[in-house]
Amino acid sequence: MTLTLLEEQIKKIAAPDPVWSAAAREHLNNLTKPIGSLGRLESVAEQLSVIFKGDLPDKLSKAAYVFAADHGVVAEGVSLYPAEVTAQMVRNFSEGGAAINVLCRKHACALTVADIGVNADLSTLASVQHCKVRMGSRNFAHEAAMTEEELAAALQVGIELAGEAHRAGKNLIAVGEMGIGNTTSASAIAAMLTANSINAVTGSGTGLDESARKRKAAVIENALQLHFGEDRSAAAMEVLRCVGGLEIAAMTGFYLACAAHGIALICDGFISTAAAAVAVAIAPDLSAYLFAGHCSQEPGHRYLLAWMGLEPILQLQMRLGEGSGAVLAMPVIDSAAVIYREMATFASAGVSEAQ
Amino acid sequence: MTLTLLEEQIKKIAAPDPVWSAAAREHLNNLTKPIGSLGRLESVAEQLSVIFKGDLPDKLSKAAYVFAADHGVVAEGVSLYPAEVTAQMVRNFSEGGAAINVLCRKHACALTVADIGVNADLSTLASVQHCKVRMGSRNFAHEAAMTEEELAAALQVGIELAGEAHRAGKNLIAVGEMGIGNTTSASAIAAMLTANSINAVTGSGTGLDESARKRKAAVIENALQLHFGEDRSAAAMEVLRCVGGLEIAAMTGFYLACAAHGIALICDGFISTAAAAVAVAIAPDLSAYLFAGHCSQEPGHRYLLAWMGLEPILQLQMRLGEGSGAVLAMPVIDSAAVIYREMATFASAGVSEAQ
Repeated sequence: MTLTLLEEQIKKIAAPDPVWSAAAREHLNNLTKPIGSLGRLESVAEQLSVIFKGDLPDKLSKAAYVFAADHGVVAEGVSLYPAEVTAQMVRNFSEGGAAINVLCRKHACALTVADIGVNADLSTLASVQHCKVRMGSRNFAHEAAMTEEELAAALQVGIELAGEAHRAGKNLIAVGEMGIGNTTSASAIAAMLTANSINAVTGSGTGLDESARKRKAAVIENALQLHFGEDRSAAAMEVLRCVGGLEIAAMTGFYLACAAHGIALICDGFISTAAAAVAVAIAPDLSAYLFAGHCSQEPGHRYLLAWMGLEPILQLQMRLGEGSGAVLAMPVIDSAAVIYREMATFASAGVSEAQ
Repeated sequence: MTLTLLEEQIKKIAAPDPVWSAAAREHLNNLTKPIGSLGRLESVAEQLSVIFKGDLPDKLSKAAYVFAADHGVVAEGVSLYPAEVTAQMVRNFSEGGAAINVLCRKHACALTVADIGVNADLSTLASVQHCKVRMGSRNFAHEAAMTEEELAAALQVGIELAGEAHRAGKNLIAVGEMGIGNTTSASAIAAMLTANSINAVTGSGTGLDESARKRKAAVIENALQLHFGEDRSAAAMEVLRCVGGLEIAAMTGFYLACAAHGIALICDGFISTAAAAVAVAIAPDLSAYLFAGHCSQEPGHRYLLAWMGLEPILQLQMRLGEGSGAVLAMPVIDSAAVIYREMATFASAGVSEAQ
């Protein structure tokens, strides 16, 4: 059922048309500046032009979606913070005190926080979307993180939230997450998709020391052995089910359905990007709709970005998640759009071109 | 006379007090996020705290100042664009069609364009500050770019504009420029101050090909020989006078006087940063007030930033000038300030700390 729903989204993702790219470059080259001198702003404007089929909206309507869930694998001692922090941080989001709240207020970005699988009753929190699939994913050191049904339910939540965002007119969305333990899932996914070593893609998360980081890598090593043996060619969806997490699955569905709706997407840090990579593995055209907000300090992040061919907009040595780096990239994307729409041309301004 | 005025500014620049740095770090470490996880946002917040002596303003009042002048050295064929483009672009600024106009409108930043030495009568342009010292600097391939009096007059213009900005309550200012030929001056200044080779610090400017870039480097080589012989230890102020430009001198005075007023400054690309480097050579404490907005594509820029110990906030492959990269960095600086002021602490939000 849901897999049919998912197939529908994938089919609806329009392939990028190079005609919009060429038209955008021609327009950019006529603006009153040396050719190419606005660097990344120009490539961002070009990509926006492709996403919006040559018709850049007057105003980008911005939103951030933060997907929260707990992770059974935390029982293996892979995180510096106790699992309770997931629920505590969702409360912090609902009270407006977290980094993502502050950044969204500053940058005129609507914020939606969705509980996909937090291991606590958060039903009294009015400002949270209640989409709980389960009280945390299963411990993937011992069994698949999700059953087929749980995976399908989490994907469906993402698809439904994308539909809401589309109906609300959002056209630029940052995708963030909160989930103690979720860098462990992201590392496992990165190792499987990018074929880099587990050691290379496993970082210190919220601040593990080197021996704890090595233990975390060993947990991942054993889990990949358990689920896939020596085989690193498992389908992305099965990787997601076995070693992902509920919020990661919901983000995967969200990315796919947003792209189907023609929405420009910004992935954030390592976990948000791992979900994007699963989505791109399933539907390669999705990458045309995707901006990499920043390059985080988690070492696996750059491998995922390189694997998708994405160049991060910002490099600010951040490693917080929550969508923070993606929202921080919004002013650059917004700037690219207004440059494209509002700058004078050489002809209109009476400025001489290069000799 | 003006040199007394300049000395006064230099004396008024308060040395950074480490007490504010330590207090800022303690506050940042109590916010609901893993320690250091906001990366560059945290170091920016710390620097703001030092600049504003622990008292971050509720709202950063932003401005961009663009200093325009022509350069006699253009007669040597160092630029791809004709000298007339300086005046044409100032007209474009006054009509709101240039990149800097668009970016300032987008980011709620007041814009002042000052004619320090454009080789055209711009007196009819109402939205330009008329501070012309001379119709362009002298051709430094043959004589000093400025006489002592012209240098003093240009520095004074910068000091006066800083006073105006201060009286208008501006506390975060991007410093930009427009002047066909001015990367030639900036390269000459960078070679003298940083002791790197002329070839290393000379780039293609608005788009020279390699043979034209080499001719430009040879013009600089001959000029440094003419003014300084084999000596690379000339005082920064004399370097500015001999191979600088009117807008570069005005920016130097502006940086010094803004720092004297306690204003946070953002240098932009290669030329704006060359002026900042002259100011830092004269008054090293100035660097505490200075953010590097971005790292441009002009190769000399990174040498100047490294020489001042500044880490650029953005890396967007830009090379336009006008203050564009500095204004684009403002949302990051603004974000750092609101993160510092508005985020909840672990205690206030009831979130557990790391184990």
